[in-house]
Amino acid sequence: MTKPTFGFLGPPGTFTQEALLQVVDPESADLIYYPTPEEVILAVAKGEIGQGMVPMENSVEGTVNATIDALGFETDNLVITNEVILAVRLHLLGRAGTNLSEITEVYSMPVATAQCRRWLREHLPNAKVIAANSTAEAAGRVAYEKGSAAAIGPNLAAQLFALEVIERDVTDHPEAETRFVVVGREPAAPAGRDKTSLIVFIAEDKPGALLEILTEFSSRGINLTKIESRPTKRVLGEYCFFIDLEGHVKDDIVSEAITSIEAHVAKLRLLGSYPRAIGRLDAERLARRARSAQARAGSE
Amino acid sequence: MTKPTFGFLGPPGTFTQEALLQVVDPESADLIYYPTPEEVILAVAKGEIGQGMVPMENSVEGTVNATIDALGFETDNLVITNEVILAVRLHLLGRAGTNLSEITEVYSMPVATAQCRRWLREHLPNAKVIAANSTAEAAGRVAYEKGSAAAIGPNLAAQLFALEVIERDVTDHPEAETRFVVVGREPAAPAGRDKTSLIVFIAEDKPGALLEILTEFSSRGINLTKIESRPTKRVLGEYCFFIDLEGHVKDDIVSEAITSIEAHVAKLRLLGSYPRAIGRLDAERLARRARSAQARAGSE
Repeated sequence: MTKPTFGFLGPPGTFTQEALLQVVDPESADLIYYPTPEEVILAVAKGEIGQGMVPMENSVEGTVNATIDALGFETDNLVITNEVILAVRLHLLGRAGTNLSEITEVYSMPVATAQCRRWLREHLPNAKVIAANSTAEAAGRVAYEKGSAAAIGPNLAAQLFALEVIERDVTDHPEAETRFVVVGREPAAPAGRDKTSLIVFIAEDKPGALLEILTEFSSRGINLTKIESRPTKRVLGEYCFFIDLEGHVKDDIVSEAITSIEAHVAKLRLLGSYPRAIGRLDAERLARRARSAQARAGSE
Repeated sequence: MTKPTFGFLGPPGTFTQEALLQVVDPESADLIYYPTPEEVILAVAKGEIGQGMVPMENSVEGTVNATIDALGFETDNLVITNEVILAVRLHLLGRAGTNLSEITEVYSMPVATAQCRRWLREHLPNAKVIAANSTAEAAGRVAYEKGSAAAIGPNLAAQLFALEVIERDVTDHPEAETRFVVVGREPAAPAGRDKTSLIVFIAEDKPGALLEILTEFSSRGINLTKIESRPTKRVLGEYCFFIDLEGHVKDDIVSEAITSIEAHVAKLRLLGSYPRAIGRLDAERLARRARSAQARAGSE
């Protein structure tokens, strides 16, 4: 039997690989990395790999428009099958025995160093900040090059290049999280606590179009967890909304709402229903909700 | 008389500087650059500079969450006073006389090279892609270092470092635009074709909260141009919506809608009313609208 194949935004040592390892056992699957989210998604669409993990929101790996564009506009046969939310934890990594005081160069991606600027200014005001194409490349340079250099990167990058964590959590905003999604060709079955993602295309931006859509959800008690408007950049004057909601497309109220919406928009593209991940903030909110509504909790 | 001071996301040669030069004459103002959007915004808030230009959406300079967070959560005395929309035009830049065939290294920011990946694969498949902290740093390295290197960057970077454009428009998505905003402490007067930005904070994410807000706008015929939901990351369970709408806060219908919304949300933070920029897509849509509604055009 051939192993399932999973693509991810590489190189090895990225947060995306860290996210993938939360849901896939590397012993029982082949993991293949790609240089961009778009290439991961196109490889799944063409059937070169079974599924792919890509960053969706607030990633240090760069823009997520690449993910949304590839998923929403460049392919039409893919669905999101799972999601993973990771805290963005960046550490200062160095070779064994390196002291903070002797570091003269710090390697990382510009997006990552920008998130650690305050920490760097306070603790390494004289170190030169040198750009790398990924946090993994940065860790690799520290591992193989001479000099008193350190890298800013995630735990996995330290493990892959046998570096030590010199300082934990050097980001200025330790509460930051990144949301990753698994993309595949087969929809996921209901898991009991699901989320559905969709894109609604509207022919003209006019007052009230969005209102009609939201009413379909609201009147059925469906909770939205995300909404974002964007020009489609494909058809002039066409706008679209990215919507995430609580529930599975196999739930009656969700499928009814979608059918009603389809009747009065240019197009509705279902991006899949999948088990809802629990981020740190989500987890705390859910715990609070559980406490304040224990009576309801039993019946869910 | 002292010159007005404008901060921008630097270093010199960035798209943000290009955007600033569209609205400010460098002869009659002092331009000061900062390493992050956050630092530009905080400098304006503290009164160190008069106004600041920062990227807001879809920038090649990196994430815009930094802009929104600093403006929405870290300061409370600032308003957006203007906006500029620029096409993201990235060119291959080299020293005078450099031929495409002899280029062995390409310098740029990871976010910028990611946008040119297809072009690079086709035209420079063997060139080594080397990371820089900004497109300007990349241009500087090409200008001052030996070897057959080229940089990917905007026109202004070529001008600042006396480089030639070897190839125009090397991005894979030439339709990409970046939206920049000018941030200041004094609100802008109505200009006739304005836009208003605000953030609405909602105490609990419940079905219907957003619907109530949108109804206030829709019932008054106010057109929204952007809507985006986000956790505030400040108070657990609190969500907020970033909303852009057509009109000025001094328009009666806009101020009425805002007053009504304020009555039933946790907080509403007005980010200012300012003249609406015309992007490429906007310009074409507007032209089409003007044609299809010439009768109305005369009265506006």
